Amino acid sequence: MKTYLDCIPCFFKQALDAARIAGANELTQKRILNRLAKTIQKFPLSSTPPEMGRTIYKLVKEVTKKDDPYREIKAKNNRLALRFYPKLKRRVSYSKDGLLTALELAIAGNIIDYGAKNSLNVDKRLKEILNEEENAIKQEDKAIFDYSQFKDSLKKANSILYLADNAGETVFDRILIEEIKSIYNDKEIIYAVKERPIINDALIQDAYICGIDKSAEVISCGSDGPGTILPLCSKNFLKIYKRVDMVISKGQGNYEALSKERCPIFFLFMAKCPAIAKDVGCNVGDIILMKNSSRKRKAI
Amino acid sequence: MKTYLDCIPCFFKQALDAARIAGANELTQKRILNRLAKTIQKFPLSSTPPEMGRTIYKLVKEVTKKDDPYREIKAKNNRLALRFYPKLKRRVSYSKDGLLTALELAIAGNIIDYGAKNSLNVDKRLKEILNEEENAIKQEDKAIFDYSQFKDSLKKANSILYLADNAGETVFDRILIEEIKSIYNDKEIIYAVKERPIINDALIQDAYICGIDKSAEVISCGSDGPGTILPLCSKNFLKIYKRVDMVISKGQGNYEALSKERCPIFFLFMAKCPAIAKDVGCNVGDIILMKNSSRKRKAI
Repeated sequence: MKTYLDCIPCFFKQALDAARIAGANELTQKRILNRLAKTIQKFPLSSTPPEMGRTIYKLVKEVTKKDDPYREIKAKNNRLALRFYPKLKRRVSYSKDGLLTALELAIAGNIIDYGAKNSLNVDKRLKEILNEEENAIKQEDKAIFDYSQFKDSLKKANSILYLADNAGETVFDRILIEEIKSIYNDKEIIYAVKERPIINDALIQDAYICGIDKSAEVISCGSDGPGTILPLCSKNFLKIYKRVDMVISKGQGNYEALSKERCPIFFLFMAKCPAIAKDVGCNVGDIILMKNSSRKRKAI
Repeated sequence: MKTYLDCIPCFFKQALDAARIAGANELTQKRILNRLAKTIQKFPLSSTPPEMGRTIYKLVKEVTKKDDPYREIKAKNNRLALRFYPKLKRRVSYSKDGLLTALELAIAGNIIDYGAKNSLNVDKRLKEILNEEENAIKQEDKAIFDYSQFKDSLKKANSILYLADNAGETVFDRILIEEIKSIYNDKEIIYAVKERPIINDALIQDAYICGIDKSAEVISCGSDGPGTILPLCSKNFLKIYKRVDMVISKGQGNYEALSKERCPIFFLFMAKCPAIAKDVGCNVGDIILMKNSSRKRKAI
């Protein structure tokens, strides 16, 4: 996805938020915004938002000298999500369609991240999702939901690459991976996280803390963009990326980085801002399960 | 009010919105954002947001060569508000406390502007306000409401300067001015608008279209900031500003420009963003009627 002009005010907001989370004082925050103002003038809009995002967070790290400002937030989200794990498992096991429920819960994990960034009560929202009678996600929120295509691809695929998004959310990914494994015990599933700290994205240790390693091989993509920026990924990752039969791409950042790819990717995310909603052709807050060849339409 | 760092992302958003309203293509929009990025680095945070706002809109005008991009929006808002005038008058005349109702409606006018900028259905919201049984503004939304002080000041004042905010909203100001005149026929009321186009702020012609001239003397403040920036105002305006016994300052922009003044000003606005909410000590969306000496508290 290209960077929209609407992303520019948001980049300044992200830089300010990150500077504050890194504990920068007002003067340092202003210095970071000034440096971003210089950078932004040279930034080509043909680049993807995660490419600019990476530049922003590198700048914040460089100025504040904090390598992982989101460390505590990630640890807290891991703990919170793990507390819900038994309830998530029960929810799937009692469901008429366990795979659908697991998919919905994986997207619910993405909603939590949105909630956290928008001061929603994450704990309360999680409880609401889990207490809802039928589906975790309301039917009307599913703007694009290629479930039957997803099932078909899953059936045929021998190897699946699952691109992680945020720490904490990883527990929800585990639910989906375990459900896939319970249906197809022979599938090879590889779970790819980021190489170095970038916002609250999951790293190797988060994947282990959240127990993903019990049902998938955990690898790093070799890069630190807030989305899988292929030219920056490791050779090992790219070899796997090209080899696998199916990719499950989690979160908005991975969509932004990979939306122009033509290999079989299923994007799984909540559309969290007007720019992505415009790109996908949906509304902000919509839930998306989309095969990359089925872009730009508004139907389930 | 000083400019908060949180205002910076918002300045970029405002510039982009204004560029689009002025009909700029994507390339020109980017050029405007780049120019702003250059300017922002030199901008002192000790300045008020309307000072930066003025710079932004001047930049948009300069690049797009459109002198008044908001002309049509203002005309539409004037028409819409005038349609509601008879109903607003009836509402005040049937009220147990006509002055309070007129004050609430004047703030409701400020809400409409907020609605317009946030894609609310303004027409629908107006109808809701006017159909509500009791007060136009809910009691819980009035974070600071110095009504008894306002009545006291009004009683004592011989001359009142009313600082206008947006076109359209002017009809709601007229309701309040007419109510003041119906109680105190002898008060001198001067209604000050902006000298040249700035966003959707009311100009002399808007005041006349909305019929303010029937009960107040209409003047220009001599400047074109999106708030009354005193150092840029005309000598004539400043003479009146210093002479009058009471100032009614309408809207967020005028609060931002005048919050540090020590003469008797009553600020009347809705807190539309986190920066002003932080400055006032209230929540976004709160309704404020505040004497300038009674800042930083949370009580009615």
